[in-house]
Amino acid sequence: MITKNTVKQIQSLKQPKYRKALQCFVVEGRKMVEELLQSDFETVYLFATERYLEEHPLTDARLETVTEVQMEQMSGQDTPPGVLAVARTKTLSANAMTLGPFTLALDGIANPGNLGTIIRTAEWFGIRQIVCSEDCVELWNPKVIQATMGSVFRMQVATAPLVDFLRKQQQAGKAIYGALLEGENLFRKAHWEPGILVIGSESHGIRPDILPLITQPITIPRAAGSVTESLNASMATGIILAAWASKSE
Amino acid sequence: MITKNTVKQIQSLKQPKYRKALQCFVVEGRKMVEELLQSDFETVYLFATERYLEEHPLTDARLETVTEVQMEQMSGQDTPPGVLAVARTKTLSANAMTLGPFTLALDGIANPGNLGTIIRTAEWFGIRQIVCSEDCVELWNPKVIQATMGSVFRMQVATAPLVDFLRKQQQAGKAIYGALLEGENLFRKAHWEPGILVIGSESHGIRPDILPLITQPITIPRAAGSVTESLNASMATGIILAAWASKSE
Repeated sequence: MITKNTVKQIQSLKQPKYRKALQCFVVEGRKMVEELLQSDFETVYLFATERYLEEHPLTDARLETVTEVQMEQMSGQDTPPGVLAVARTKTLSANAMTLGPFTLALDGIANPGNLGTIIRTAEWFGIRQIVCSEDCVELWNPKVIQATMGSVFRMQVATAPLVDFLRKQQQAGKAIYGALLEGENLFRKAHWEPGILVIGSESHGIRPDILPLITQPITIPRAAGSVTESLNASMATGIILAAWASKSE
Repeated sequence: MITKNTVKQIQSLKQPKYRKALQCFVVEGRKMVEELLQSDFETVYLFATERYLEEHPLTDARLETVTEVQMEQMSGQDTPPGVLAVARTKTLSANAMTLGPFTLALDGIANPGNLGTIIRTAEWFGIRQIVCSEDCVELWNPKVIQATMGSVFRMQVATAPLVDFLRKQQQAGKAIYGALLEGENLFRKAHWEPGILVIGSESHGIRPDILPLITQPITIPRAAGSVTESLNASMATGIILAAWASKSE
């Protein structure tokens, strides 16, 4: 039987400070929980309602049945899907990661849906590592987790001071690509060197102290006559990654 | 002076049934309101708080100053930006639109952020027309409007029974492209004919009665070893549009 205290503790995980203190985050819904259980993340708790289990039987030593009311208290969703897990966060060091041929560096991505979508899309195109600046939205935010559709359990995502990280990579001979409004035409780019792709924030783009580190600015060409000012940050990331992947096949 | 009744009427626009009945929708924030005022949409009301006007002077015959409390009542945002307009909806007929070389057909896109992002991205790549199935999320939903970042005021978006629309286009000799998990490799596609690109819903993809109308299935290749099941629907749309645009330069 789940105690009132446990319910309260899990409710507290809706707030970033408790996620940080308890080093735990919440995962909801059938697909997401299945992905968690198959991953190497530690599952601390696993709860489901009887109604959920009738439709989706689940065998797991950690499983505890909860009432609909308890589930509603713990869930962060308007319509709780009926299955909820608590997982242990992981802390990776950007400098300790063995980088693949292409790595993403996110400079102040603030929208949780954008961060989650970037992680999901990066995995699709075979990127393994993402380095986030310290002012990106927190990785364990439930909206980030849900938008990754499970990719968060398989990708290596680190937080680091980006200027230092990029300077080291540049010194190690990596190309530092940046998504900018003025740069090489993405559609005409035939060759990519091993490197890092920097994506700026939704409202301010790449910050001034990172700009000098960009060795290869890249632009997604806008159609003649179009007056839109920009693309969504996750969209721009996906379009550049697709172009990179198409030349790396 | 704004009346209590007007405030109530604008509050009611948070609900789809009143947007439909009054044929009006709400636009919030400086950039969005500016885009509205520059567009050929009819602006029915324009409200701003004194605090907003101190920072962003605005000259417009329709402008009415409201109190912070009135703005909070009308606003759909947690932090009201201080400027809010009400605009008249437009109804376009898919069959009456003069289609450009490439048109989007959205089959059951349910997430407002996705629809808005698709409209914004389509404009970037020079698409002019989008046809939505009747079960897509409503175009005038505030989350759709905000995610378009103003593109909604310049794009032609119609709602139509998609099967009929696509059949007519096919009979007129247009290629019907479909984003599917099995199809021609997008990265190797060198030539695009004038046509329609069909994007399926987030949860079910392209519906069965539309599948036989697809003449050219297209797939965004996934990296070897990646286990992600799919891309986000708006992301897939943007990546295909970028590939199309890169061959249409």
